[in-house]
Amino acid sequence: MNIHAKRIKDLQHLLKQNRLDAIVVGRALETGFLTGFHLDGLLMLVTRTEAWAFMPKMLLADFNSKVDFVSASAPDNLIMAAASKVSELRLKKAVFEPETENYLRGNFWKLRGFSEFKGLTSSLRAVKEGEEIDVLRRSCRIAARAFGLVKPRIKTGCTERSVYRALEDVMQGMGAKGPSFDLIVGFGPNSALPHHETSERRLKNNEAVLMDYGCVYRNYCSDITRTYFHGRPTDEFKKVHAIVAAAQKAGLARVRAGVKTRDVDAACRDTISDAGYGQYFIHGTGHGVGLEIHETPTLNTKSDEVLKAGMAVTVEPGIYLHGKFGVRIEDSVLVTKSGCEILTR
Amino acid sequence: MNIHAKRIKDLQHLLKQNRLDAIVVGRALETGFLTGFHLDGLLMLVTRTEAWAFMPKMLLADFNSKVDFVSASAPDNLIMAAASKVSELRLKKAVFEPETENYLRGNFWKLRGFSEFKGLTSSLRAVKEGEEIDVLRRSCRIAARAFGLVKPRIKTGCTERSVYRALEDVMQGMGAKGPSFDLIVGFGPNSALPHHETSERRLKNNEAVLMDYGCVYRNYCSDITRTYFHGRPTDEFKKVHAIVAAAQKAGLARVRAGVKTRDVDAACRDTISDAGYGQYFIHGTGHGVGLEIHETPTLNTKSDEVLKAGMAVTVEPGIYLHGKFGVRIEDSVLVTKSGCEILTR
Repeated sequence: MNIHAKRIKDLQHLLKQNRLDAIVVGRALETGFLTGFHLDGLLMLVTRTEAWAFMPKMLLADFNSKVDFVSASAPDNLIMAAASKVSELRLKKAVFEPETENYLRGNFWKLRGFSEFKGLTSSLRAVKEGEEIDVLRRSCRIAARAFGLVKPRIKTGCTERSVYRALEDVMQGMGAKGPSFDLIVGFGPNSALPHHETSERRLKNNEAVLMDYGCVYRNYCSDITRTYFHGRPTDEFKKVHAIVAAAQKAGLARVRAGVKTRDVDAACRDTISDAGYGQYFIHGTGHGVGLEIHETPTLNTKSDEVLKAGMAVTVEPGIYLHGKFGVRIEDSVLVTKSGCEILTR
Repeated sequence: MNIHAKRIKDLQHLLKQNRLDAIVVGRALETGFLTGFHLDGLLMLVTRTEAWAFMPKMLLADFNSKVDFVSASAPDNLIMAAASKVSELRLKKAVFEPETENYLRGNFWKLRGFSEFKGLTSSLRAVKEGEEIDVLRRSCRIAARAFGLVKPRIKTGCTERSVYRALEDVMQGMGAKGPSFDLIVGFGPNSALPHHETSERRLKNNEAVLMDYGCVYRNYCSDITRTYFHGRPTDEFKKVHAIVAAAQKAGLARVRAGVKTRDVDAACRDTISDAGYGQYFIHGTGHGVGLEIHETPTLNTKSDEVLKAGMAVTVEPGIYLHGKFGVRIEDSVLVTKSGCEILTR
């Protein structure tokens, strides 16, 4: 069976398990995940036995040529069409997902008797399977290789933005569609800003270089961070880099199916705190990665999800010394029964 | 005054005009528009006299170094902080914008006594001013120039995807950050799909080439479509191209401050219908363009907004002959008192 047809079956199985009759799905991420048709504008209605897609007229021919396991139509009003279908089929328990819905449409569903139900599509998306894993692996490998290709080109005087473009070029040369987010290239003190906006600043001798980047390859996002010192590293940089590397190693060692996400965070955080830098690790340890650059699950001090085999997550501890430099080391990994496979290698 | 500080003043003026006390703004597009700080994660509260930004700890140092006209802080819970501030100041009429809000946060505001109020930030964003116009002009000029540079490279046998990359490269070479959307390059019958996904299909002799593309330059999006025939155009292509060109010309001639958006659509649509192709023009005539590739206003058969000087919109009629070819001609234009300035020239 086609992977997308299978996902619709999986969603239908979840409906049954949760004693639900139908779900409406309207965000492009989820409709793309369920159909393989990644354009914005579809509204899907999935019942225990059937699946419909309502869309603007201009998408219909293209959709029908690519997807044959969903009934497609182009009514004037998509949300009315979905709501009417639910009434027509006399479905009692129809739901929408509050976390993926916008305010206006969510309230329309509410008004039409739909209930909120969280986490159905995100739980399906979180666990990668089949061909999807190969695509994600390729996306991560492209990103990982780009470091080795771009680093030798980074010389004193080049701008952060030129490194951004070099990363993009090199990744596109390997088949990537483009960057998976606003890539972060930070030189010197800019590396101490976890969400620095890549700028025209030029690289000086003897300062830190941080690159947080990734690509989109066949819709799948990769995410990686590398930090090194351009020139002769200071003792402080060497010390901080070693602590972050040890923290990341401890985090990776903790990743395994069945482990709580916050325990992976704790493994990283404890290493950094024990070294006396706890207050400088100012963000969570990681996040799921896939069709979105940030998706389920979350790995931080409060998260209580449990890792499953097939989940893809980042492990990315960091230490940020404001005005001086920051170090972050990040890999994307695939959770397995016995540990993890590092994808960005 | 800084353009962003002025926008906050403009928003405060709108609050007074509409007898509102405060507004919460949580989407990156709007917080970026109001502060010039374009990262995701900010939540702003603007009252008639003050402006606050609540954000994750890791953004604070960066924000403070760039924005000095908003009070920034990093509370544990952003939405609670905003709601508490409203209570603390005893503000009676606090609002949120239902069209930019997600379902969960919108309902939190509702629960805390905030009301829905549409269109405040979008009305500010729709009318471009000052430096913003120069940036948009540059974004459009980069896109327009790319056509002349890339067209000579498009030869029989090249793939749609390779043209996509050539457009990207050329635009980045002129300073663009990247494409402003998933660029559409369609050869032959693919040109008849208005939202075709650019593929590995190769160009054959004697077929249509459609390129719908644009770039992001300093956060501003451009949008342009060019269609031509690779080889010796068929009579049918020549006829259809001439009709679309005439329709676009009629639409552009109609653009002027004070005109209804649907009248611009009618000017294009009537030309195409009169030529007997009405049923093949299967989408609206245009949309606003700026920080987003699609923004206020909308130009279609039903839209009833009125054009104002400073609005930037696309005019993009098309005719799509399924299985054969499609023609779309699109420019981004700036609305003026007496007509419009074509930006993609």
